[in-house]
Amino acid sequence: MTRAINFNAGPAALPLPALERAKDELLDFAGSGMSVMEQSHRGKEYEAVHNEAIALLRELLAVPADYDVLFVQGGASQQFATVPMNLLPAGKSADYVLTGAWGEKALAEAKVTAAMLGATVRVAGDSGQGEGKAKKYVRTPTQAEIKIDPAAAYVHLTSNETIDGVGFAVEPGASFPDTGSVPLVCDMSSDFMWRKVDVSRFGLIYAGAQKNLGPSGVVVLLAKKDLVAAGRKDIPKIFQYRTVAENNSLYNTPPTFGIYLIRNVLAWIKGQGGLDAIEKTNRGKAGLIYGTIDSHASLYRSPIEARSRSVMNVVFRLPTEALEEKFLGEAKKEKMIGLKGHRSVGGIRVSLYNAVSLEWVKVLAAFMSDFAKANG
Amino acid sequence: MTRAINFNAGPAALPLPALERAKDELLDFAGSGMSVMEQSHRGKEYEAVHNEAIALLRELLAVPADYDVLFVQGGASQQFATVPMNLLPAGKSADYVLTGAWGEKALAEAKVTAAMLGATVRVAGDSGQGEGKAKKYVRTPTQAEIKIDPAAAYVHLTSNETIDGVGFAVEPGASFPDTGSVPLVCDMSSDFMWRKVDVSRFGLIYAGAQKNLGPSGVVVLLAKKDLVAAGRKDIPKIFQYRTVAENNSLYNTPPTFGIYLIRNVLAWIKGQGGLDAIEKTNRGKAGLIYGTIDSHASLYRSPIEARSRSVMNVVFRLPTEALEEKFLGEAKKEKMIGLKGHRSVGGIRVSLYNAVSLEWVKVLAAFMSDFAKANG
Repeated sequence: MTRAINFNAGPAALPLPALERAKDELLDFAGSGMSVMEQSHRGKEYEAVHNEAIALLRELLAVPADYDVLFVQGGASQQFATVPMNLLPAGKSADYVLTGAWGEKALAEAKVTAAMLGATVRVAGDSGQGEGKAKKYVRTPTQAEIKIDPAAAYVHLTSNETIDGVGFAVEPGASFPDTGSVPLVCDMSSDFMWRKVDVSRFGLIYAGAQKNLGPSGVVVLLAKKDLVAAGRKDIPKIFQYRTVAENNSLYNTPPTFGIYLIRNVLAWIKGQGGLDAIEKTNRGKAGLIYGTIDSHASLYRSPIEARSRSVMNVVFRLPTEALEEKFLGEAKKEKMIGLKGHRSVGGIRVSLYNAVSLEWVKVLAAFMSDFAKANG
Repeated sequence: MTRAINFNAGPAALPLPALERAKDELLDFAGSGMSVMEQSHRGKEYEAVHNEAIALLRELLAVPADYDVLFVQGGASQQFATVPMNLLPAGKSADYVLTGAWGEKALAEAKVTAAMLGATVRVAGDSGQGEGKAKKYVRTPTQAEIKIDPAAAYVHLTSNETIDGVGFAVEPGASFPDTGSVPLVCDMSSDFMWRKVDVSRFGLIYAGAQKNLGPSGVVVLLAKKDLVAAGRKDIPKIFQYRTVAENNSLYNTPPTFGIYLIRNVLAWIKGQGGLDAIEKTNRGKAGLIYGTIDSHASLYRSPIEARSRSVMNVVFRLPTEALEEKFLGEAKKEKMIGLKGHRSVGGIRVSLYNAVSLEWVKVLAAFMSDFAKANG
């Protein structure tokens, strides 16, 4: 088998050892004579996997004891609704910071949800340039540009904009915005588990699994327990974070195979030396691509300000769409796939999640240099 | 490998050929050099699987053209909330028919949801005996016992109660209740795809996959298009059935691997001769177990009235809990698992989903006869 060089934005490449482990065990998990998919979610075999996944998340991210680690379904898009359903009391307002397409979606859904629940939302920061469909995001707002309502129920931001390639706190040691006493809620989907973050800075982190963690169909939440406890109780029980927390994410049947695969991926991350080692590799990968872009400035152009350049999703443009098409076509001949920018913004996008090896990135960088020489 | 004889209630046994196909393709789907999990949900490889699963559901169930076939996440438990969110307008009421534990849960969640949305719910039928925790369900209500509010937005029922072992319309040719012009909404989770049903009798059918269809983490909806179109628009977009329908279940990233495995299972069902052949086998399996119960009446007792005995989940009791424990322990030694009744009701439960072979059921029936001779 020749493995494709997979730069998909998500669902994305998974570590081969995690997949091989799944393949080996697919018909017979832990000597049970059954697939893990066929096991009861209340049986001891599955429970061990479930709890190991939670323990590995706690260990690798140094999750503080006053946070719950939860698994839910519906994708991060469902959290756009369930965050306000849980955390936005009637008569209160929540603040949203916009740095790209996903933040806009989160805001739009929060508006509908707030209206349903007798609450409101407002924009506390917006680094977009232009209006409507022409609106572009090339940077994160500075601390001074974010105007937080001190009475807000929470501040929501998207730490990494997968489509736009804009990230918060991407430079080594950089900090996320200070929201004072207002809880910070973060969609960290494409930004999760490629480095350590200080979880205690957040009230809630949520992340769809299909980037750095596993297959689509699972969302991980890191939720401060007091925020969970204070959540609304007048919403359906299935959507209350407290229901998930009180039942160790086993209130109803979880997506067991997805959580099993997350366990495999987390064990692989640990085997790689944990998040410090993973971060180092990821910074090397991103540095190589951004460096190649900048050293062939006549052909490639990153629209993103240097301090906001995503480490996970590198977006860049060529002078014409025709050249971009040619670039994608020639890359595909070299077994490199997933490089086309999102249909809403065009251009090229290179997603560099954990399972994308440095070797793959070197192949791409060499291809980019060759292509620049031939077409620059 | 010795395959376990798996009578789990869900997640449950899956057809071995569907799992073997998944194993063979796990690292390299359709010659792509990637797992199906690693492919974009907007790429042609995944899209072909997605559309094939939908087409097979349409074909096997003869789904009428004016119905959408949809995939959503969150389990049937999430539908307990999203059904009223979509289908219960402000100021209106919905009717619920109770025949077991899952119907009770659906009602409880609908009450909270209705209160949130300025609507109400009422009980239109309840075949339970006794009160509170001692309440027992041993039958479905007759048509005359179901009192439908002609102004109700919909009537909700659970066609098969997985925990209680009580089913609607289980006899060959039997009909589901007539709800006149009020749309019938049905939780068919443990009752889905073991036989043909007349879909046109329902406004909405929903079913968690983890019984007869695939792994947990996917719910199938068969929804009448006019009902979808008339649904509420003042709820979050992610929960609107119209959002799912307008985007062919690709509004946000679906659980791609789960849908892929559903495709494998549906192809297997088709290869078995479709639902008519599957139903015949299932009725044979259930007949064998109920027959064994009835022919050893001194030891085994089915609490369920004959006309309501579930074909998918056969529940029965032994004279004492000690004998039930002994039964379960000796069965386990013979590699038969998943026979313990739900913790809320106790006793024995035999789940007979499509992937449970007649051979396995014969092994169990022989074991039951031997156990009766030794302990009767």
